[in-house]
Amino acid sequence: MSLIVMKFGGSSVGDAERMKRVAKRIVERKQAGHSCVVVVSAMGDTTDDLIDLSKQIYDGAPPAREMDMLLTTGEQVSVALLSMAIHNLGEQAVSYTGWQSGIYTEAVHGKARISDIQPQRVLNAIEQGNVVIVAGFQGMTEAGEITTLGRGGSDTTAVALAAAIKADLCEIYTDVDGIYSTDPRIVKVARKLKEISYDEMLELANLGAAVLHPRAVEYAKNYNVTLVVRSSFTNNEGTNVKEEAVMEQGIVVRGIAYDKNVARISILGVPEKPGQLAKVFISLAEVQIDVDIIVQSGVINGSADFSFTTTLADRERALAVIEQIRGEIGYREVTSEVNLVKVSIVGAGMVSTPGVAATMFKVISDLGISISLVSTSEIKMSCVIDNSNLTDVISALHTAYGLDTTEQAFVGGPEDRR
Amino acid sequence: MSLIVMKFGGSSVGDAERMKRVAKRIVERKQAGHSCVVVVSAMGDTTDDLIDLSKQIYDGAPPAREMDMLLTTGEQVSVALLSMAIHNLGEQAVSYTGWQSGIYTEAVHGKARISDIQPQRVLNAIEQGNVVIVAGFQGMTEAGEITTLGRGGSDTTAVALAAAIKADLCEIYTDVDGIYSTDPRIVKVARKLKEISYDEMLELANLGAAVLHPRAVEYAKNYNVTLVVRSSFTNNEGTNVKEEAVMEQGIVVRGIAYDKNVARISILGVPEKPGQLAKVFISLAEVQIDVDIIVQSGVINGSADFSFTTTLADRERALAVIEQIRGEIGYREVTSEVNLVKVSIVGAGMVSTPGVAATMFKVISDLGISISLVSTSEIKMSCVIDNSNLTDVISALHTAYGLDTTEQAFVGGPEDRR
Repeated sequence: MSLIVMKFGGSSVGDAERMKRVAKRIVERKQAGHSCVVVVSAMGDTTDDLIDLSKQIYDGAPPAREMDMLLTTGEQVSVALLSMAIHNLGEQAVSYTGWQSGIYTEAVHGKARISDIQPQRVLNAIEQGNVVIVAGFQGMTEAGEITTLGRGGSDTTAVALAAAIKADLCEIYTDVDGIYSTDPRIVKVARKLKEISYDEMLELANLGAAVLHPRAVEYAKNYNVTLVVRSSFTNNEGTNVKEEAVMEQGIVVRGIAYDKNVARISILGVPEKPGQLAKVFISLAEVQIDVDIIVQSGVINGSADFSFTTTLADRERALAVIEQIRGEIGYREVTSEVNLVKVSIVGAGMVSTPGVAATMFKVISDLGISISLVSTSEIKMSCVIDNSNLTDVISALHTAYGLDTTEQAFVGGPEDRR
Repeated sequence: MSLIVMKFGGSSVGDAERMKRVAKRIVERKQAGHSCVVVVSAMGDTTDDLIDLSKQIYDGAPPAREMDMLLTTGEQVSVALLSMAIHNLGEQAVSYTGWQSGIYTEAVHGKARISDIQPQRVLNAIEQGNVVIVAGFQGMTEAGEITTLGRGGSDTTAVALAAAIKADLCEIYTDVDGIYSTDPRIVKVARKLKEISYDEMLELANLGAAVLHPRAVEYAKNYNVTLVVRSSFTNNEGTNVKEEAVMEQGIVVRGIAYDKNVARISILGVPEKPGQLAKVFISLAEVQIDVDIIVQSGVINGSADFSFTTTLADRERALAVIEQIRGEIGYREVTSEVNLVKVSIVGAGMVSTPGVAATMFKVISDLGISISLVSTSEIKMSCVIDNSNLTDVISALHTAYGLDTTEQAFVGGPEDRR
């Protein structure tokens, strides 16, 4: 008998039928002798519908405090209905909002971080034999203001709550039945992973394998919460995310991720003097532009070339910032490129295995594709290439690193990642 | 400069356009130098839509606690949007749920009464120059459970809050522009009342003139809160509801109400012995059947006839209860009647003015209509008649008591009375 946190996303509870199916799943867990705390997101399109309403009322971006008041109703509707659905199956359940669950956050609206959880009320309700249903994505400040945690917030609620109540397990139910070696919609022979480490998962999540929110994985790593990612729709075994994950014999790369939301900017002919790079990236940081890969060529004839990547949305702003500091830096020319994709191989064993990088370069060059940027870290290596080559490159890498399988992947609809 | 509570019902904020119009109205009040606290109901059909959702999930009546969790989201959406709409007009506003406003209730779900209001947070927000938007219809128990006040709840929230913050005025905005001498949809020459007393309003409200919820009027009477009932859609002067209301010269009856939700039950040939009436009405009360008018005929040959009225919904259950106690009571026969209407004249001056009752009987008998039941109190008199005669009777009474006017009544759509 263990204490389990179960998290269901928006598409898992998208309508009454799905809500009932989720309830059945929870009741099975409960009747198998487990104590269950369930974290749930807003139903299907609810959040988008509420945002639409706000747009009809307010010209521009509405005050963030009021937006939080508005959006948190979505999860409150979900918890009430899910509790009813469990009652309807004859089990005891009680629903709580974020503030009722003792979830405290920073005094920031729209993307607060959890600052503290006081889980006594949740624990008491469990002790009384209830399934406890907690609204994801929300909390309260010390001053009693309602806040939201931003995208990925329900995952974070689940993990933080699991840590606070010392749960044995935190199950993330989603529209896929686990973490795959790469996107099974692109590569049919993708394999489901039995285990993956927090660090590997973080690299995969940040790179676009949007099954688990990075903030939630970080939280799980910090508090050593064992996560299981599994399907809302099937009983297939999922993927365990934990500190140390066992690698299968002969496999070095755990997974292959990709991210199409990438633009390259190059600053060419930058006169070499100290502090040039710092000037550029401080200017970009001041206007909240996130920079990912940064590459500097060697210095030739007293000048160097820099390249970096940003998101597609930030590209224009980044170019404007660089134009503003042209006089200060004294560079010759700026170029930028879109229609790119960043392909990354991730694996904790990469650092200790020679030839992993060489294989990646060889696979890509064998396909006659040129690489725009390269970046490496201890457990990942990324190449930016033209995005028309995505499927070919991922498939070839998947085969080259011995990841192909013959099992059938399960892929549901798109899950709301709140 | 005064402190005003303004209450808007569900149809006044039924869509984005109406919400914006209400915001404009509030901002005008604020810019005229008043401090405004606004109580608002759920938008239009929101509550019904949420109830429909719950029916898809739960077979039968869902757990009341979870129903409160569900339904209170309706008002939370309203307050957030209304606050945005006010911000959009350049004024400061802040929205609060029931619990954030310090509205405490009994530990009952679905129809809690307000037990205490701790308005410090609302008062602080006013002091900081905000329009404060409070979710109607909801509160919190001492244990932190979310509750609802039941139908009419938003009116009660407004009045109770007005009492707690010692507001100068509590304005109830609705779909009619005041309290009329009778239903202007039935009698075109109905007159709008400048003033009406709490007691008269209570009689009118209970009798079906559903503009103000009786519980709210009671609250206003107990705490001596001056109410104004006025239109959300026009700037017409409304009706003041207060302790002492001035009567116009020569007018004794303030208004004429009617209620079609009435069934008559008669128990005939009840052997006369002490406690017979008590037995009947205790049995009915035990199953929560509300009885309105009760009439007993004189005793003839050792037996008497009783008649009483209930709501249409309670009639069948009442008949079943009476059947169960047939042996105990020993009556001869039970009859019942539907398709009735209770017509009531209300006026604080009635008790001191002779001939008021006689006029009512004469008007009805002149129309060739027979009266099924009669009941009188200090400030009202009710006759139950066949409901096919409703319009004729009300019109004739309205004329007979000198209430006809030539002004045009303003009548909007049906208002949600939550």
